[in-house]
Amino acid sequence: MSNIKNDLLLRVLSGEKTERVPVWMMRQAGRYLPDYIKLKEKYSFFERCQTPELATQITLQPIDQIGVDAAIIFSDILVIPQAMGLEVQMLEGKGPLLPDPIKTATDLNRLIIPNVDETLGYVFDALRLTKKELNGRVPLIGFAGAPWTILCYMVQGKGSKTFDEAKAFCYTQPELAHRLLQMITDTTIQYLKGQANAGADVIQVFDSWGGLLGPNDFENFSLQYIRQIITSLKETVPTIIFAKGAWHSLDHMAATGAQGLGIDWCITPQMARQIAGPNVTLQGNFDPAKLLSPIPVIIKEVHAMLDAFGGNHHIANLGHGILPNVPVDHARAFVDAVKEWKLNLNTA
Amino acid sequence: MSNIKNDLLLRVLSGEKTERVPVWMMRQAGRYLPDYIKLKEKYSFFERCQTPELATQITLQPIDQIGVDAAIIFSDILVIPQAMGLEVQMLEGKGPLLPDPIKTATDLNRLIIPNVDETLGYVFDALRLTKKELNGRVPLIGFAGAPWTILCYMVQGKGSKTFDEAKAFCYTQPELAHRLLQMITDTTIQYLKGQANAGADVIQVFDSWGGLLGPNDFENFSLQYIRQIITSLKETVPTIIFAKGAWHSLDHMAATGAQGLGIDWCITPQMARQIAGPNVTLQGNFDPAKLLSPIPVIIKEVHAMLDAFGGNHHIANLGHGILPNVPVDHARAFVDAVKEWKLNLNTA
Repeated sequence: MSNIKNDLLLRVLSGEKTERVPVWMMRQAGRYLPDYIKLKEKYSFFERCQTPELATQITLQPIDQIGVDAAIIFSDILVIPQAMGLEVQMLEGKGPLLPDPIKTATDLNRLIIPNVDETLGYVFDALRLTKKELNGRVPLIGFAGAPWTILCYMVQGKGSKTFDEAKAFCYTQPELAHRLLQMITDTTIQYLKGQANAGADVIQVFDSWGGLLGPNDFENFSLQYIRQIITSLKETVPTIIFAKGAWHSLDHMAATGAQGLGIDWCITPQMARQIAGPNVTLQGNFDPAKLLSPIPVIIKEVHAMLDAFGGNHHIANLGHGILPNVPVDHARAFVDAVKEWKLNLNTA
Repeated sequence: MSNIKNDLLLRVLSGEKTERVPVWMMRQAGRYLPDYIKLKEKYSFFERCQTPELATQITLQPIDQIGVDAAIIFSDILVIPQAMGLEVQMLEGKGPLLPDPIKTATDLNRLIIPNVDETLGYVFDALRLTKKELNGRVPLIGFAGAPWTILCYMVQGKGSKTFDEAKAFCYTQPELAHRLLQMITDTTIQYLKGQANAGADVIQVFDSWGGLLGPNDFENFSLQYIRQIITSLKETVPTIIFAKGAWHSLDHMAATGAQGLGIDWCITPQMARQIAGPNVTLQGNFDPAKLLSPIPVIIKEVHAMLDAFGGNHHIANLGHGILPNVPVDHARAFVDAVKEWKLNLNTA
């Protein structure tokens, strides 16, 4: 840790009380940044992911331009199904499309547990290059999707409000679902170990669709696999679980040994702390749509959020990814409001 | 109440302990029923809503075919924006489209608070005809969307995962948002009073998108308007609020005086009871996708749900609308499993 100048994020995750709350934003690399949009016009989504120079450049943009306290590698959770042998297309403005989704046992035979160095080496290269370019300014976050969220896309074949087909797959063919989840888990563990080896200082597991499952099904189809991932990384790198909407299981998520838990804006920080227990670091939970508010409103609401978290064991973040239509100065206002809140506290 | 033979639903809502748990299913009229699909091929969505004979026929289908303990009038929450002067199209397989959504103060001037007898009289006619045809077999439920959910469609113009444009409208132009919400509320109160006059025995307010708001915003943009509606109906008819995902405010919803609160499957019955308090009737909360499971699994899971609710102050239902691809015998298995559970309890 001593090689990183701004190691606020790492210290908060290790349980330390820090001089101020660290801040970063999910999806901070890309989308709303004009320099990213220029690259997007020139290179396809997977070109941007698979070319280490481009991925590094995109990863660094918010560090230089917005002043966040951590970098998160530019990539996508769907590189995993791709590496497992499933075709993944990214349709501009429409989201992901997997034209041959998994529906049957026969479909499962099309999948492999890949050698991650061969199939996902480009992510490791991007991490190494980013690490070098960061030159110790801030920690670098690596990530993967939770197995349940990856299954959602592999079975449904595209985005969905409810992922009914993915749920029906689990409820009607549970053995098949568990076989698939275990294959994704095994791949993800190797992938995340590779990310840590390549320089990721923190790993975040995104369970974007965990909130579609009831508490029992969340344990059965999601958390037991996340637990395997967290356990396998325990000796290597600090971890953050973000299972959007699965507030009901914050206590079980804390018990996995993950150092951080992401929460969305639909739970108060107080309630989240009550369920998660006193020790784990909470990350969140600003409503991303609120970054469209006028800047004075953003500042007021960010300060109210920080007050509610109380300043310790907290990483300031959004409750989901930043929206593409957020003005850059609003994103910067969010970050500055977090940094400035600590000053207010010092003079209080 | 004495005119209704099976008045289980009304007695549970009045706080009575009943001989068994009543059961109905959101969206039970339509979608998955072959007789409905035949009508759908012949008549457009709004023809089905606006022709009392068709609406009545559709409303009665699940009473005869599935054996539910209540009828809910076949209609749609978007009849309100339509009556207020906004064009609403229903695109087969795509959902609603409002081609001229509300974005500015000028747009608001296009809206009226309608005379509901003139613009929505067809719903009242359908209720009267259904009431007659039901002939006191089961209670009849009327409904409307919560003002926040209606605003979502009026501003976004179509369905959405996140309704970002609707939220941005509220966060950037709060005064305009509150003016619109009050107009919707005033219209809805007249509309629901009309439904009660026309024979609705219970009113349910659907806040399908309440769960997109954080706790403070839910109070500000949704619950304060729902509260006006519940208060205005208090002397007339029992009410149920279903604000999907807004579990954090179950206590505040109970405090409105509504007799029932709907919950989705992402909260345990125990936790919902803990937040909502001991007196209000809870309604729910079977995961609709679970009706795709094999029938023995459905029965087992329904019984587990009923065990968790404990048999009192409970209306068995799904946690959201029934899915179009649910086999009819699975829907029937859900209803039968609820009815049969009580028998098990009697012989225990």
